[in-house]
Amino acid sequence: MTDVEIPSEQWAQVVERSGGPVVYKKIPVRKPGPDEVLINVKYSGVCHTDLHAMKGDWPLATKLPLVGGHEGAGVVVARGELVRDVEVGEHAGIKWLNGSCLACAFCMQADEPLCPHALLSGYTVDGSFQQYAVAKAAHVAHIPPECALDAVAPVLCAGITVYKGLKESGARAGQHVAVVGAGGGLGSMAVQYARAMGLRVIGIDGGEDKGKSCKSLGAEAYVDFKISADVVADVKAATDDGLGPHAALMTAMSDKPFQQATGYIRSRGTIVCIGMPTGAELRAPVFDTVVRMVTIKGSYVGNRQDTQEALDFFRRGLVTVPYETVGLSELQNVYQLMEERKIVGRYVVDTSK
Amino acid sequence: MTDVEIPSEQWAQVVERSGGPVVYKKIPVRKPGPDEVLINVKYSGVCHTDLHAMKGDWPLATKLPLVGGHEGAGVVVARGELVRDVEVGEHAGIKWLNGSCLACAFCMQADEPLCPHALLSGYTVDGSFQQYAVAKAAHVAHIPPECALDAVAPVLCAGITVYKGLKESGARAGQHVAVVGAGGGLGSMAVQYARAMGLRVIGIDGGEDKGKSCKSLGAEAYVDFKISADVVADVKAATDDGLGPHAALMTAMSDKPFQQATGYIRSRGTIVCIGMPTGAELRAPVFDTVVRMVTIKGSYVGNRQDTQEALDFFRRGLVTVPYETVGLSELQNVYQLMEERKIVGRYVVDTSK
Amino acid sequence: MTDVEIPSEQWAQVVERSGGPVVYKKIPVRKPGPDEVLINVKYSGVCHTDLHAMKGDWPLATKLPLVGGHEGAGVVVARGELVRDVEVGEHAGIKWLNGSCLACAFCMQADEPLCPHALLSGYTVDGSFQQYAVAKAAHVAHIPPECALDAVAPVLCAGITVYKGLKESGARAGQHVAVVGAGGGLGSMAVQYARAMGLRVIGIDGGEDKGKSCKSLGAEAYVDFKISADVVADVKAATDDGLGPHAALMTAMSDKPFQQATGYIRSRGTIVCIGMPTGAELRAPVFDTVVRMVTIKGSYVGNRQDTQEALDFFRRGLVTVPYETVGLSELQNVYQLMEERKIVGRYVVDTSK
Amino acid sequence: MTDVEIPSEQWAQVVERSGGPVVYKKIPVRKPGPDEVLINVKYSGVCHTDLHAMKGDWPLATKLPLVGGHEGAGVVVARGELVRDVEVGEHAGIKWLNGSCLACAFCMQADEPLCPHALLSGYTVDGSFQQYAVAKAAHVAHIPPECALDAVAPVLCAGITVYKGLKESGARAGQHVAVVGAGGGLGSMAVQYARAMGLRVIGIDGGEDKGKSCKSLGAEAYVDFKISADVVADVKAATDDGLGPHAALMTAMSDKPFQQATGYIRSRGTIVCIGMPTGAELRAPVFDTVVRMVTIKGSYVGNRQDTQEALDFFRRGLVTVPYETVGLSELQNVYQLMEERKIVGRYVVDTSK
Repeated sequence: MTDVEIPSEQWAQVVERSGGPVVYKKIPVRKPGPDEVLINVKYSGVCHTDLHAMKGDWPLATKLPLVGGHEGAGVVVARGELVRDVEVGEHAGIKWLNGSCLACAFCMQADEPLCPHALLSGYTVDGSFQQYAVAKAAHVAHIPPECALDAVAPVLCAGITVYKGLKESGARAGQHVAVVGAGGGLGSMAVQYARAMGLRVIGIDGGEDKGKSCKSLGAEAYVDFKISADVVADVKAATDDGLGPHAALMTAMSDKPFQQATGYIRSRGTIVCIGMPTGAELRAPVFDTVVRMVTIKGSYVGNRQDTQEALDFFRRGLVTVPYETVGLSELQNVYQLMEERKIVGRYVVDTSK
Repeated sequence: MTDVEIPSEQWAQVVERSGGPVVYKKIPVRKPGPDEVLINVKYSGVCHTDLHAMKGDWPLATKLPLVGGHEGAGVVVARGELVRDVEVGEHAGIKWLNGSCLACAFCMQADEPLCPHALLSGYTVDGSFQQYAVAKAAHVAHIPPECALDAVAPVLCAGITVYKGLKESGARAGQHVAVVGAGGGLGSMAVQYARAMGLRVIGIDGGEDKGKSCKSLGAEAYVDFKISADVVADVKAATDDGLGPHAALMTAMSDKPFQQATGYIRSRGTIVCIGMPTGAELRAPVFDTVVRMVTIKGSYVGNRQDTQEALDFFRRGLVTVPYETVGLSELQNVYQLMEERKIVGRYVVDTSK
Repeated sequence: MTDVEIPSEQWAQVVERSGGPVVYKKIPVRKPGPDEVLINVKYSGVCHTDLHAMKGDWPLATKLPLVGGHEGAGVVVARGELVRDVEVGEHAGIKWLNGSCLACAFCMQADEPLCPHALLSGYTVDGSFQQYAVAKAAHVAHIPPECALDAVAPVLCAGITVYKGLKESGARAGQHVAVVGAGGGLGSMAVQYARAMGLRVIGIDGGEDKGKSCKSLGAEAYVDFKISADVVADVKAATDDGLGPHAALMTAMSDKPFQQATGYIRSRGTIVCIGMPTGAELRAPVFDTVVRMVTIKGSYVGNRQDTQEALDFFRRGLVTVPYETVGLSELQNVYQLMEERKIVGRYVVDTSK
Repeated sequence: MTDVEIPSEQWAQVVERSGGPVVYKKIPVRKPGPDEVLINVKYSGVCHTDLHAMKGDWPLATKLPLVGGHEGAGVVVARGELVRDVEVGEHAGIKWLNGSCLACAFCMQADEPLCPHALLSGYTVDGSFQQYAVAKAAHVAHIPPECALDAVAPVLCAGITVYKGLKESGARAGQHVAVVGAGGGLGSMAVQYARAMGLRVIGIDGGEDKGKSCKSLGAEAYVDFKISADVVADVKAATDDGLGPHAALMTAMSDKPFQQATGYIRSRGTIVCIGMPTGAELRAPVFDTVVRMVTIKGSYVGNRQDTQEALDFFRRGLVTVPYETVGLSELQNVYQLMEERKIVGRYVVDTSK
């Protein structure tokens, strides 16, 4: 422990029953266990997953009462006695994976996100919509000191997730990758990561504004599904040899875009799904999948190594995230805007307000 | 050219119109072009694909009139003037991929089966249901002289295809692989290849006889879907740690078995589809595919390297194929049995009868 | 903690000064820390590395006084309060890697053996040449209950190391691998692992007896360097197409065998070195290495996943290790035989004597 | 054939005996065979290999008399009757690999450069130091029409070779790679390719000018071996975490730089050698190579796919090559400058002068 003064109470947004809403109130500050750290969260990004958690949309039940949030950036203020690799005073991040056993068949292969004993921030354990949050020391993100804590917050889930998806795609520098939903929050980060990895991006989304935004972030081409007469043909035409992109990243998941992806993906190419809409299904024709040797794969959040890599691209200035900051007290309003699909980019909450 | 006597006419089974039937008749013997060889086909395996071709089941149109067949084993009797790597007198095989351009983006990466200019035996060019068949020299299978030509015939399509599927699964020696349809023609070969690759096989099929056959070929476990109350649970229970097999090979493709595979496959595991039923669809839940990082991929026939590898396992006695031999003249009867689903194992036709 | 009775003193073999010898004496039993377990070692294999450690042969200094040993098999008798994944009463193994930080750049990628904070059994921390040894819970080998503790001991270092080396070689089922020193302790295990992985083994060693032993363990071919006029030519001739093996595993390392390996290895092939003789050097001609695209790589001990996989092959009866058992009190004699190169197979010490 | 007028005689530089010099003289124009094309070479890069070939430095004998050159860029003027994929009028390149069998174990796996029947331009067959050169159609480089033929010439060997070496290194976007000889002809291209692939480059060479040049081409750091007191320490310090670069590319090969690379390479890292100095040797300590799991590999020229990829980076403007153009008639002078080590960048000869 250390001599930083830690209050016994703090402000938090609490889901008291499944369905919501969140309640802004004072709750006690927890003490970290021997292998944990306590982080004074300064800022936290707001993700669709937080809304799903509050509403109880997914097959997996949440803790209740629940403090949501899994894109928390702050300062370590205390640590347990076994902790060696994290110092008090360091900048650290609370991400979706709050902890894992580090000893199961998945953890042993660096697939911590698949650990059956995984702790999920803002879902099975309290997350970052509070001023002081606890996390397993071995799992906190190490945030380089030169990164602003508000700007980096959305990288901790959205950034890592799209970066991981791009890695999983197997696409190599110089190859084409389609980013579906390229104008959205995940998509606009995906465009930038892909470009920084030497990939050539075809953005797919609806509307002229999104096209401009995609191109300004580094996409080589943009296909507007609202005006394209044939999305499959247009995406293929945007590749040098007309054979289609080597990979497609589905940041949003619905039936039609997925069907299109199975049409324009290059033979031997890979479609990576990262979005998780309630109740959605993948559907693809067997014949075409077989004779063209198409791969479809799901990619979840990154592991700890992916986290540090994704942060490093951000630190080097290769990825920027447009965001708007509001007080933690206004979280319910942000959820409201999300429900109304009025959000472009990312909201970040400031826990001091 | 050489001094082997080559007749000008030969017996063949000809599809004269889409839908069939095949007509057993005399047709001329073709001469090989500069980069081709002429093979005196001794035996040819009969594959479901041949039936699909005759009936016109698939989205891709066949040549007409058509000589089917793509598992032909015989002796090279003539070669074009540019051919260096194949000698007259060698044993060689006619396989599904009769030829490819060797220069396109796919051929340059050893993915000849994806070549847009591929020639398909018994589909876009005449195949092996005749006594003398032509093939591109660079694509014929090199059959080791110690292999009996009737026994090796079914390896040329079925064997290569299952072997390729197992390679594509990424499963490593010591890992579990489920073979769906393990008692069938493709499945029984898959069980043997998998075992020879050091994989641990869970056979899935219906009926006690198939279970016995699977186990005798090397499967460690067998799940009978006809009597299992919960196929997903039973397949998982057949793995050491209960987490499910690392890979599943779908030799037959229909909705329910595929749905089950998405349930029992280990997280990070791979489902490989090699069968191509008319009009079938892959369907998988997005949520589970993403959070468990499941991969679904189509695998087509092998390339030339896969062909030689698959033949080598056969040559070493690690794979045997139960087959029944009938005269080429009886091909229509074989199709009849196929339609009635009365075939276990493989039929091979003898072109001399 | 538990109610198993744990003595306060125990027998151990202690290196009191670099150079040795080992002294058989009573020392205190340590208590496990919060993330550690205490194992009642029943048997421990004796490895060349133990001799190197006693003699201080390597650039890295050992702890002093030192209890050597890193192939210890026994029963868990106590555990720290944070330990979840290991139960008292379980069979567990002490291996070379006693612990690692689980949080550094290497641990995060499942390369624990490269962790800069790694604890090495019998080298930087006390090992298994004592009746009660401590190890980090996350790193103990989980020994299946059906494995005899004396027979499994040598797998914990020798077995894991050769298995890892074979994995690192990248050789696939059906390919040829040369095992250099195939008649020795490491080599004879390598032959069996390779075979179980579907590889085709060419054993290389000196003498007719070793040849017989290799072949009985599953090698397809044997090259006796004592009588071969041209080892390079003979090894190449032992491969189907004469192009040489796809991989070579150097279980013993000296200049001439390594030079030969650079000659017979197939173009694009890989030479894996696992032995660590004092002061040895790799030497290879640049020209040939470049134009034939040869890979040379060092492989160290396995990680935790490799450990469990290597044990599983043993459990399934695919690997057996010839060994002789003597009392722990006789360890110095074993070292003596080792120095005199009189050991074939492996010695295992029984800690009860 | 076509109606482009092809002369019967042409100017060429001919090596009449091993050791040189080259003789500038008129020789007949060859006709392409059925699977060949005739290229009107406009420009050809001059590579150290051409000098080695003239001098007979390497273990493999050259054709004699010999027309050297393997970086020829020009226009297809005739093609054989089997050629489908190359049109008369296209821009095409003559590269080191003039042809291969396309059917051997290496060609079948897209490793054409390892084909035992490979034809080598300017070595075993006549190359590009003439106005009209013949090449196998399946192997010519397809030069995009927007690339200037003089500027692209050096990409055809130097560019492909460094690009292939970087691919073989396995380094991923965001990782550090050291380029040894970063200020030289190969090195300066390697810096640019690496950067375009998302890699972070540490240039190593001697002198301040080379440092400036490296950085202007995109290197993040530069280590000057002439002034560094400890190259190993300085290279490690140039990486974010001080653990050293993930890969090192040796564009020039001599003992000391290679020894240094074995010291600064990150554990699990890869050292790729692409240079081929006469009689040089790789030397590395076994102990360190094993316990740090270092990989050392040779990388030769690229295959056909690598060729098209390397050209594509050039086409996109991501790689530029400083070169000086002189007449083909002045080739001997260029060799003279090369011998005197007076060349920075690349010389290109214009076959019209």
